[in-house]
Amino acid sequence: MSKKMPEIQLEEVRRFMEDCLKAVGAPESEAQAHADLLMHADTVGHYSHGLNRLEFYINDIRNGACEPNKTPEILKDVGATAWVDGHDALGATVGNFCMKLAIQKAKEFGVGWVAAKRCNHFGMAGYWALLAEREGLIGMAFTNTSPIMVPTRATQSALGTNPIGVAAPATGGDKLVVDMATTSVAMGKIECQIHKEEPLPPGWALGPDGKPTTDAKAAFTAGKLMPLGGEEKTSGYKGYALAAMVEVFTSGLSGSYMTHNIRGWETDSLQGPPNLGQCFAAINPEFFAPGFKDRVADCLNTWRNLEAADPSLPVLAPGDKEHKIGGSTLAKGTVNYPPNQVEAMNNLAKRIGTDHFSYLQQNS
Amino acid sequence: MSKKMPEIQLEEVRRFMEDCLKAVGAPESEAQAHADLLMHADTVGHYSHGLNRLEFYINDIRNGACEPNKTPEILKDVGATAWVDGHDALGATVGNFCMKLAIQKAKEFGVGWVAAKRCNHFGMAGYWALLAEREGLIGMAFTNTSPIMVPTRATQSALGTNPIGVAAPATGGDKLVVDMATTSVAMGKIECQIHKEEPLPPGWALGPDGKPTTDAKAAFTAGKLMPLGGEEKTSGYKGYALAAMVEVFTSGLSGSYMTHNIRGWETDSLQGPPNLGQCFAAINPEFFAPGFKDRVADCLNTWRNLEAADPSLPVLAPGDKEHKIGGSTLAKGTVNYPPNQVEAMNNLAKRIGTDHFSYLQQNS
Ligand SMILES: NC(=O)c1ccc[n+]([C@@H]2O[C@H](COP(=O)([O-])OP(=O)(O)OC[C@H]3O[C@@H](n4cnc5c(N)ncnc54)[C@H](O)[C@@H]3O)[C@@H](O)[C@H]2O)c1
Ligand SMILES: NC(=O)c1ccc[n+]([C@@H]2O[C@H](COP(=O)([O-])OP(=O)(O)OC[C@H]3O[C@@H](n4cnc5c(N)ncnc54)[C@H](O)[C@@H]3O)[C@@H](O)[C@H]2O)c1
Repeated sequence: MSKKMPEIQLEEVRRFMEDCLKAVGAPESEAQAHADLLMHADTVGHYSHGLNRLEFYINDIRNGACEPNKTPEILKDVGATAWVDGHDALGATVGNFCMKLAIQKAKEFGVGWVAAKRCNHFGMAGYWALLAEREGLIGMAFTNTSPIMVPTRATQSALGTNPIGVAAPATGGDKLVVDMATTSVAMGKIECQIHKEEPLPPGWALGPDGKPTTDAKAAFTAGKLMPLGGEEKTSGYKGYALAAMVEVFTSGLSGSYMTHNIRGWETDSLQGPPNLGQCFAAINPEFFAPGFKDRVADCLNTWRNLEAADPSLPVLAPGDKEHKIGGSTLAKGTVNYPPNQVEAMNNLAKRIGTDHFSYLQQNS
Repeated sequence: MSKKMPEIQLEEVRRFMEDCLKAVGAPESEAQAHADLLMHADTVGHYSHGLNRLEFYINDIRNGACEPNKTPEILKDVGATAWVDGHDALGATVGNFCMKLAIQKAKEFGVGWVAAKRCNHFGMAGYWALLAEREGLIGMAFTNTSPIMVPTRATQSALGTNPIGVAAPATGGDKLVVDMATTSVAMGKIECQIHKEEPLPPGWALGPDGKPTTDAKAAFTAGKLMPLGGEEKTSGYKGYALAAMVEVFTSGLSGSYMTHNIRGWETDSLQGPPNLGQCFAAINPEFFAPGFKDRVADCLNTWRNLEAADPSLPVLAPGDKEHKIGGSTLAKGTVNYPPNQVEAMNNLAKRIGTDHFSYLQQNS
């Protein structure tokens, strides 16, 4: 991280994102919805999924891979389920459409299970799960992605980072948020090691030869992430199996591309729409035993109160890290970005004819 | 493994299990159902969950922790969901009851989601998922367990091995089976390392002091398994997060004990019924895009055909290992157990007044 990090007000970041999306043809409502998704990521500290992704979305719109004016369409709607065609609309457009449907069905039938084909990148899976959590439901979201995970024993990637997002409400506004790629780490963490000039811990990635490596640059070039668990002897096949499960929920149910047919992660949209598969589900705890939120809260607090091996690193419940960062970002009202990122964004603004960032100050 | 492994015909193993369960009061139908669950494990090579567990179930019945004559009861049945009281019946009794309900609901509503409290140990999670798979559905099963997983950063266990079982049908009888504890490994694998006199790979377990250890004996005594992923730097918090998700589906929805209130894994049933929480779900692919089984088959075959790093270790699809072992066990028609296990079983038979094993021969 550079020492001079321009500090920008949250509302200005949101304005910038919305303006850019509108400039390339997104309707106001969808530009707002998509900006909200990206703002969430930058607020809770997952910077890889916020402003950092804006140019990627803009390029996809300009190349026709993403069609921000399209509306998702219900192809089948039976009982507690729905099958949706995302029509290559923005990630937030399809996510909101499908999760609202799942929530509605969970309120009526106790569960809602919705699968969509022809989707674009939907950002943080947890953002979608949280829509249901806010309605008192368990929310779940899954997506397949570009092939970047190498199945156990293989040398080539054939599955994605295929994330799992699950959120559940607890008493007093508390919540559990599980939001994770099924690889050990995302590519972003390997980039961080390059910047820090540190080797990778074992179990993160393979090199170009398909063998485990701790060389961050080699790993970055190769684009061969290991599944959660790492090598076979540390049960990496479980991360692979979880990615396979996500594949069944997404391409399996929706009829989208399967990961091994999806465009590479490093390429832009010249290959046409990515046709990702996504899955959104909600479960209504009111249809089960009374006291759900109390039990979830009991678990969260039990875990948090466990004795920590290192007292300076207290035990967290899943979701706490993002919750804490989110709280301080909102209190501060601003977010800092590396100067070269702000510069790249201002260049983007110039190209598509929107206003550049106005920022507060440079921290130094 | 000893060299002299008594070889017993599958039907004789089944007979033995059923007789033992009946001798302590299980009705014929439930003894058969529970023996089928255990036979599945010994057939597909998960010996820790087959005959190996019989004495544990028998003890639980004799101590009143398990009541094999009881019938599960539906407490709520709304839409696509049901809440069940397992009444401390045998694992197979509750599993069959709940999964049948989930299957029925998936056929009607597209999804079925059933949660049960007051459950006993239900063996392999995958066995339950496969009941739905055989009906052309995606099946899922989850259970909480005795506390044995130490959440990331903590020194004490507060979650279980909380397994995830998911099965999906593919063209031509092929299938995907994801069936895994959310810890790196189960205790059984640590026992194996003790027998082999080999150290543990990193990321498996903590020692009695709550620090990572590679000493198999210390790990076994401590009973502190690490979540899938191992330490924090290799994303062990993701295994912890998955166990937390299972906890929400099981104790959360059902109102059973939460893992941190469940009896220790090393104890027998003197503490009364374990009151585990379990969750069974089914999803009907027919309510979604046509061609589901073909897409699953395409994925399975793509993964299997990936170039292997070591040509003697071909890439497997999740479930292949068990499928292959299952095929050869059935072809052989027999299973081998260590002599001391057969001896222990014959002692058990004597105590409860059933016929001892008749076995074929001793391999030598
Ligand atoms: N749309 C896509 O194609 C795509 C693909 C991959 C990942 N993603 C998103 O990227 C984001 C980051 O993924 P990731 O795998 O790097 O996640 P991560 O490793 O940062 O965190 C994973 C989860 O673990 C929890 N966690 C972290 N530290 C913890 C601790 N010490 N104790 C307990 N819980 C802890 C977090 O709260 C979170 O729920 C997610 O939002 C994910 O959905 C999206
Ligand atoms: N009832 C309970 O309380 C309880 C608790 C924990 C575990 N269990 C059961 O114990 C059994 C064993 O669990 P485990 O965690 O030791 O499982 P495991 O590590 O043996 O296997 C996990 C999964 O990975 C797959 N797999 C293994 N090697 C693979 C490879 N090279 N490539 C692709 N896939 C591969 C398997 O087919 C399986 O689906 C499971 O049946 C589980 O349900 C039950």
